[in-house]
Amino acid sequence: MENLTNPHIKELMPRVAASSRSGPGIYLDCNELPYPPSPKVVQAIVEAIPRLNRYPDTLGGSLRKALANYAGVAEQKVIIGNGSDDLIELIIKVFIAPGEEVVILDPTFPIYALSTRVMDGHPVIFRRMTDFGIDFQYIIENITSTTKAIFIANPNNPTGSLVARQDLMHLIENVDCLVVIDECYYEFSQETIADLVDVYENLLILRSFSKSFGLAGLRLGYSIANKNIIDYLYRATQIYPINSLALVAGAAALGDWEYISSKVRQVCQERDLLREKMEQMGFIVSPSTANFLFVNTKPLGITSTNLSRILREQNIWVRDFGGKLGLDNYYFRTAIGTPAENQKLQAALNELLNNHA
Amino acid sequence: MENLTNPHIKELMPRVAASSRSGPGIYLDCNELPYPPSPKVVQAIVEAIPRLNRYPDTLGGSLRKALANYAGVAEQKVIIGNGSDDLIELIIKVFIAPGEEVVILDPTFPIYALSTRVMDGHPVIFRRMTDFGIDFQYIIENITSTTKAIFIANPNNPTGSLVARQDLMHLIENVDCLVVIDECYYEFSQETIADLVDVYENLLILRSFSKSFGLAGLRLGYSIANKNIIDYLYRATQIYPINSLALVAGAAALGDWEYISSKVRQVCQERDLLREKMEQMGFIVSPSTANFLFVNTKPLGITSTNLSRILREQNIWVRDFGGKLGLDNYYFRTAIGTPAENQKLQAALNELLNNHA
Repeated sequence: MENLTNPHIKELMPRVAASSRSGPGIYLDCNELPYPPSPKVVQAIVEAIPRLNRYPDTLGGSLRKALANYAGVAEQKVIIGNGSDDLIELIIKVFIAPGEEVVILDPTFPIYALSTRVMDGHPVIFRRMTDFGIDFQYIIENITSTTKAIFIANPNNPTGSLVARQDLMHLIENVDCLVVIDECYYEFSQETIADLVDVYENLLILRSFSKSFGLAGLRLGYSIANKNIIDYLYRATQIYPINSLALVAGAAALGDWEYISSKVRQVCQERDLLREKMEQMGFIVSPSTANFLFVNTKPLGITSTNLSRILREQNIWVRDFGGKLGLDNYYFRTAIGTPAENQKLQAALNELLNNHA
Repeated sequence: MENLTNPHIKELMPRVAASSRSGPGIYLDCNELPYPPSPKVVQAIVEAIPRLNRYPDTLGGSLRKALANYAGVAEQKVIIGNGSDDLIELIIKVFIAPGEEVVILDPTFPIYALSTRVMDGHPVIFRRMTDFGIDFQYIIENITSTTKAIFIANPNNPTGSLVARQDLMHLIENVDCLVVIDECYYEFSQETIADLVDVYENLLILRSFSKSFGLAGLRLGYSIANKNIIDYLYRATQIYPINSLALVAGAAALGDWEYISSKVRQVCQERDLLREKMEQMGFIVSPSTANFLFVNTKPLGITSTNLSRILREQNIWVRDFGGKLGLDNYYFRTAIGTPAENQKLQAALNELLNNHA
């Protein structure tokens, strides 16, 4: 099959399964909500099980309308996907031809670059500034005529940093390509530019149920853009992007805003508390408007790889970024867990630092 | 955004949501199993709900091993996707470059051609013979050097026809491209060439949980091929193709073979009975090794579009193929329902023919 495979695919590595998380661990490595779904979500799923022999509603069914209501836009401006990953690939499929460029601002979510390579596009990596902000003028002056899209996570993953609405508007107004704003932490940051999708023909918003809605296991994401962009995406989407249980769960989650908003509030309070504690320990912790913290271990003289390994031995899982995405050896990311989990993390870090000193 | 969209995408039509099926209808239009999931599947899903805040296991997790056991191959020869549709697109993504040809044998499953067009490939339509068999020698002699794949559904959808193992082997041995055999009705036909994936470097099998396993709502498909092909597919797959509930449900369904095999047996008995009755009414019904019948209405002088419309008025849904996929105006497909549903279909057809005569 050597001769039958697309050449650009041969240059990629096969994806490998991550080690499975099981047992009573403290899982802070995937920016998940530390709480189970609301009783209304549970009920909606259980009620839908007997009809699983039937195909799901096509194209996301009535969830599309529910999401449009939630986002405050018309139904024609929303498309649903099998998680944000699926939508990222769909966007690249529709807007990027082989060899065309996609601008990515590292350190950021690695799927933008990976999906670009899968679709034979060319990821062009620009660096964020030392405070993880973005030099927008540099982008405007340095993108080329073959740049077809810019991906910006806002708040950014893994850094937690948020860029200002006016800066994004300035960028969108001054480039001739699609600008994708990934707002998958929107409910934590409460910052959005989804209200501008009719102002800018080149703006597309990504959202997710994996973070604030606590439904990472269901693979449910959506995009908001003007009708023109969404129409193009509907030319290339699959007819059944989302399974039946995710559809009913998504609708039930949107209908139980009280549950979500109380969890979001709790996580944000815990985040600010944990940040304070970790700064007291001597870590440099980036300001975060999301449900995680990005932590620099350098002042304590321990690499993030060592720190993560020692935590893992106590079954506390954080995400090591040492040496990754252009970073040095001193960065890790931790999600915000339950208050009890956050205290265990603090205790483990305190112990680790005492032993290390 | 006109100038930003890939030209080949502009040539496609946006996909439109199908009319939603709801209420107490008789749904024979999607080749679904007419029975709810087994109690073991229900239990597995219910038990997994509290952990939905966590991401699924990557790349299908332990379901991959369970499927390999079921298919009688090594784990390295299996890949899981978000339904067969997802895998069809993945295969084209990996093996078809823009402008290259994919051979499709109409009338057949329309997603092969659609996914080819989405990926900027060129679908080349060959016609099946009048009995819906395949002229393999014609294919061997007429494919070009840019043909990169041939898709064959076996049994074929919508015709129900099965081609012989030796004929498939002859084809695979005499073409220099990938041959994809879609066995999504395998448990009904009990015919497979999955045992040959190590014999042929260019053979890939597609399977599904949507038909015999009665889990269409979950979007769960898989592919079997030699390790080399599967490795290439893993370079382009998403890291979370399948949601957590589909993963546990798939494993539970494989573990409850008794339930599935009894339903499959019942459907096949009902299929043969329904075929006999419909032939007695004067329809020409193609031999079927799947869970549906492909029916020619011409001898009765009624178009399939009229027949389908009249049945729909009684909330009986069949799939009209009149004028589609190169067929004339006299073909429809009906899935096999429960015995009670099949009797209602017969009664409605009898009444329709009496009124029509």
